[in-house]
Amino acid sequence: MPASYSTNMRLKFSLLAIALEVVIIVQYALFVTYETAADSRKPNGTTTDFDRLYPSFQDVHVMIFVGFGFLMTFLKRYGFSSVGFNLLIAAFGLQWGALMQGFLHHLHDGKIKIGITSMINGDFSTATVLITFGAILGKTSPVQLLILTVLEITIFAANEFLVGEVLKAKDVGASMTIHAFGAYFGLAVSRVLYRSGLKDHEKEGSVYHSDIFAMIGTIFLWMFWPSFNSAIAPTSDGQYRAVINTYYSLAACVLTAYALSSLLDKKGKLDMVHIQNATLAGGVAAGTTADMMIYPYGGLLIGFVAGIISTLGFKYLTPILASKLKIHDTCGVHNLHGMPGIIGGLAGIVGAAMSSTVLYGNGLSNTFPERPKRTAIQQAGFQAAGLGATLVVAIVGGAITGFIISLPIWGQPPDQNCFDDQIYWEVPDAEDDGEQLNSSEHVQKPQVKEGTYCQV
Amino acid sequence: MPASYSTNMRLKFSLLAIALEVVIIVQYALFVTYETAADSRKPNGTTTDFDRLYPSFQDVHVMIFVGFGFLMTFLKRYGFSSVGFNLLIAAFGLQWGALMQGFLHHLHDGKIKIGITSMINGDFSTATVLITFGAILGKTSPVQLLILTVLEITIFAANEFLVGEVLKAKDVGASMTIHAFGAYFGLAVSRVLYRSGLKDHEKEGSVYHSDIFAMIGTIFLWMFWPSFNSAIAPTSDGQYRAVINTYYSLAACVLTAYALSSLLDKKGKLDMVHIQNATLAGGVAAGTTADMMIYPYGGLLIGFVAGIISTLGFKYLTPILASKLKIHDTCGVHNLHGMPGIIGGLAGIVGAAMSSTVLYGNGLSNTFPERPKRTAIQQAGFQAAGLGATLVVAIVGGAITGFIISLPIWGQPPDQNCFDDQIYWEVPDAEDDGEQLNSSEHVQKPQVKEGTYCQV
Amino acid sequence: MPASYSTNMRLKFSLLAIALEVVIIVQYALFVTYETAADSRKPNGTTTDFDRLYPSFQDVHVMIFVGFGFLMTFLKRYGFSSVGFNLLIAAFGLQWGALMQGFLHHLHDGKIKIGITSMINGDFSTATVLITFGAILGKTSPVQLLILTVLEITIFAANEFLVGEVLKAKDVGASMTIHAFGAYFGLAVSRVLYRSGLKDHEKEGSVYHSDIFAMIGTIFLWMFWPSFNSAIAPTSDGQYRAVINTYYSLAACVLTAYALSSLLDKKGKLDMVHIQNATLAGGVAAGTTADMMIYPYGGLLIGFVAGIISTLGFKYLTPILASKLKIHDTCGVHNLHGMPGIIGGLAGIVGAAMSSTVLYGNGLSNTFPERPKRTAIQQAGFQAAGLGATLVVAIVGGAITGFIISLPIWGQPPDQNCFDDQIYWEVPDAEDDGEQLNSSEHVQKPQVKEGTYCQV
Repeated sequence: MPASYSTNMRLKFSLLAIALEVVIIVQYALFVTYETAADSRKPNGTTTDFDRLYPSFQDVHVMIFVGFGFLMTFLKRYGFSSVGFNLLIAAFGLQWGALMQGFLHHLHDGKIKIGITSMINGDFSTATVLITFGAILGKTSPVQLLILTVLEITIFAANEFLVGEVLKAKDVGASMTIHAFGAYFGLAVSRVLYRSGLKDHEKEGSVYHSDIFAMIGTIFLWMFWPSFNSAIAPTSDGQYRAVINTYYSLAACVLTAYALSSLLDKKGKLDMVHIQNATLAGGVAAGTTADMMIYPYGGLLIGFVAGIISTLGFKYLTPILASKLKIHDTCGVHNLHGMPGIIGGLAGIVGAAMSSTVLYGNGLSNTFPERPKRTAIQQAGFQAAGLGATLVVAIVGGAITGFIISLPIWGQPPDQNCFDDQIYWEVPDAEDDGEQLNSSEHVQKPQVKEGTYCQV
Repeated sequence: MPASYSTNMRLKFSLLAIALEVVIIVQYALFVTYETAADSRKPNGTTTDFDRLYPSFQDVHVMIFVGFGFLMTFLKRYGFSSVGFNLLIAAFGLQWGALMQGFLHHLHDGKIKIGITSMINGDFSTATVLITFGAILGKTSPVQLLILTVLEITIFAANEFLVGEVLKAKDVGASMTIHAFGAYFGLAVSRVLYRSGLKDHEKEGSVYHSDIFAMIGTIFLWMFWPSFNSAIAPTSDGQYRAVINTYYSLAACVLTAYALSSLLDKKGKLDMVHIQNATLAGGVAAGTTADMMIYPYGGLLIGFVAGIISTLGFKYLTPILASKLKIHDTCGVHNLHGMPGIIGGLAGIVGAAMSSTVLYGNGLSNTFPERPKRTAIQQAGFQAAGLGATLVVAIVGGAITGFIISLPIWGQPPDQNCFDDQIYWEVPDAEDDGEQLNSSEHVQKPQVKEGTYCQV
Repeated sequence: MPASYSTNMRLKFSLLAIALEVVIIVQYALFVTYETAADSRKPNGTTTDFDRLYPSFQDVHVMIFVGFGFLMTFLKRYGFSSVGFNLLIAAFGLQWGALMQGFLHHLHDGKIKIGITSMINGDFSTATVLITFGAILGKTSPVQLLILTVLEITIFAANEFLVGEVLKAKDVGASMTIHAFGAYFGLAVSRVLYRSGLKDHEKEGSVYHSDIFAMIGTIFLWMFWPSFNSAIAPTSDGQYRAVINTYYSLAACVLTAYALSSLLDKKGKLDMVHIQNATLAGGVAAGTTADMMIYPYGGLLIGFVAGIISTLGFKYLTPILASKLKIHDTCGVHNLHGMPGIIGGLAGIVGAAMSSTVLYGNGLSNTFPERPKRTAIQQAGFQAAGLGATLVVAIVGGAITGFIISLPIWGQPPDQNCFDDQIYWEVPDAEDDGEQLNSSEHVQKPQVKEGTYCQV
């Protein structure tokens, strides 16, 4: 094993995790308080969106912790890390995200007010890191992941401020600021961390049951995506439309993802990778336009296209990115979040260009707050600027972050330990051997002891 | 392999899926718009049930996609198809269902208005097909399933119109129109598709972990069934009662299902098939009376009976149906949805006959809109007519549909490929072989390569 | 096999289950009716918390049935029992709990009124039994478990009355009355049932996939804990605070649980037992103070400490309890519910002592209804009394219950059948053997037939 690789993260990891948590507690003690409606001293008549948004928050919560977590369990021997590091990243990220978003755009009298909206936004901020995690799944240490979370969420919050507050581009379901951002950030990190020794790694594949575990993630993401895209819509009719449009986009996307998956295989067989991922592209692509007046058939059209592009990406683009550009993308986030995120951004440009009082009535400025001041074409231009800015910030930010986490000090799993829980987890046997106790095989078995097989 | 069986569905399936989606998009563009409250141009003061019903909708959504999907993963080698085809059928069906229901009974000025209620009803319409899917699980191709979905949902919507709008029978939790309908439709389809070669098929059984995956489906169905039975109740007190009655029916049903499962085994052992399914019969049976004034003990009684009948059905009736009537019912939907659906319908007749102003007060016509015009006994008669009509339409519709999908053009898996994902999916190895890399067994293993074992 | 052990529970179990359900139905017919808002005869203007609390109820429901159920599937060969007996206990317990709580503190005109609050409280009452179940997991028969449920819920309801109604101690998230109670009750039961023959039992361990199933339980518990701690908060701002405080306590707890798990292993590897359990200690510990004005950093601090104590407990205390005190705790509930429950109770004493009009404004008596009559220090004293009473009642009640369920009449699994589904369930093979059909191994395999291996 090369000296620069560390497989024992005992002190580095535990001290870093505790230090980060201590820093967070100090910051929260200094700068964070309750939203007024959650304060016992609230004035009479204080209103709150808590009751309305709490179910949506929990749906988003399920997407972050079950959805992303289980979607990544498809690898045959990386299930502990997939669902476990996902929990670690997200639990840390939501604390860090609320701070960064608070400092950047929600400071009131020097205080960050925490409530249901900041909790939803905190969860959102972790989604970018979880998308990036998908691109580098199996190839990094938890120490690297914590550093990545700090850096990416900080850059994400800055870009979110740029797109939403400076450019005032619309992105209610965050096709651009979360999905495209997280994906291209991740691809840039993956490019920097590229190592040729991982090519055709024997652990980078699924087994039968791990693919079914991954479907738990897929289905929960699929079901609750309407809540993701609608949770922070500014008006109630906008929230309602976002649910409907996303629901239909996802439904159409399933049909084209299945159709393409079969069509692209010479025996016509479906590929679990496509089903687990491309069926969700409709949720990503519907994000920017979610609360626009695109009508149900508009949602269906977006999902129709997203399912096709995403499946094509898995089949043809991912192998090329790896072999030609040295960008290895473990979960294919480019196909699930990258390209569909760009489709969403482009649809947003079209949607903004077509916004009018005919289509939106008096509600136009509810959905497009800048429309009294900007024309439809101007708004479309700012949408394009938001998409472009996001891609630039993501790629540059990801490259810089990649260099930082590639410093030898953080440790990195050796090639032969990648895609394998063994290096960072106590791992039990794959299957109960009790039933073979009476068989002659028993004599040979003890050489494979708990937590010791395939040891480095 | 006989020439009439096709194992390669490449062109047939993908072109059919894309064609259906294109047809749907055209129909939606022509006929579908937003519900008023979701329209940016909504008049001031527009009210909506969205906030109240969205959590119930998501519960139903979880039942359809996680509940039905994972319940069927009990087969040892059909997990990809169970959860995957479930997603395909439901994603397509909810689009088709909203159209059919819209055309038949929700057309306003030539337009179908989509909102939270139509989304719940769209999900409901897919439930019938998923129940039918349970009866024929493992024996059909995805091409056959898509055709089945088109036909069954169309017939379902017609029967729903007949029962609800013409006969004006009450069926708030759809014991009759969804559960009994889906089950008897499925049994009729299964009878037509019967083939003796599937008797004692070696793949038609579970393994340890597949039974635990199936429990994910069971538990999510069990928990959220109160939302299913209450979601479309017309009044708030009716919705509330439907939740309470269903909750208690389910709870009592668990006790009798466990008791009977043990009692019927000579060693007193519990059978996972009963636990996975019969514990849910209380939800089905409580459907028609869900919003009636049956009191908590009424709910308990219904569940008590349903748990017994359902478990007896699995033990004694299912084998007889297969051997005597040539009706092979893979998931035993007759025991989970068929008989409990009829129990629900019968309970509805009793509930309607006992409806009175003493029991319901001024709210009588909220729960029974026809009661000013009909007597209690008349309403009970119409309930009986609704149950009878549903059974006739389901059996006749299922038989016709069975003949249509049995046409050779659609393909059908050969006997030896039934209950096996291999024929329609790229399937990885069952377990990671990494641990045996150093053992002598390794030499023999390569003959079992990924995606190629047991090849046709 | 010793004569006192019974492995065939056929008549005992089924008759007991049916008898208990009959008793319940009779009691419900006599004493239970709908809450006014769920009654068709409700007066005009009747208000209800149903819409506001139903989503929280469903979150709690998921914690009880999926969370507890799957958390316990970590054992390699006890998954059917874990999720299956969990369902049985909870479905029975919620019926029994609503009765006991109703008789003790919710009787109106001789009637128990069932509604959303009593349903949440019914679910809560089952949580104590499920915690206790964790301590004795794998070592009892379902007959013993049903008797345990009857006794424990009765004692729980009495203690809840003592703490909440007599002492008027605050415990909104039930750190004391549910978590500490259930844990110490379970440890007392486990002490009474102790048998040395279970030491180093070969079935008491996990396999790879069973650990991932357990993470389904962990993640759903983790996500929905804010609903558990906030569901019965008396005011809307209190509910809101409870969500925020719990959310942050859980998030901080993840960081310290991971940090300690790595720090305590000489190779720095994470231990799935810690990750599955100690990450949840923050939810337990935040319970009593959940709706107090502790601010987000207060929540973070509680979770920070809970994660450390819980992980230390798993590493050092659990082995000592087993070897020195003969208290075998299968799931380590002392570390997840016991000590964190005490931490929660202690935090509640501090929180009460610090309560003031400065901190709470006019809302002081909303959060502390006794504060006009009691001083802060007095309230702190009553909090301490509540904690002490709970521990005494739990330990004494658990010991007595342990003696009762240890009577030979109820049956108990023999040592060699503990931690194994085989004794009470029909169990299929671990893995599909289809792929070996063509190999030479096939000849030997038939000796391992379905449901017969490792037979007693």
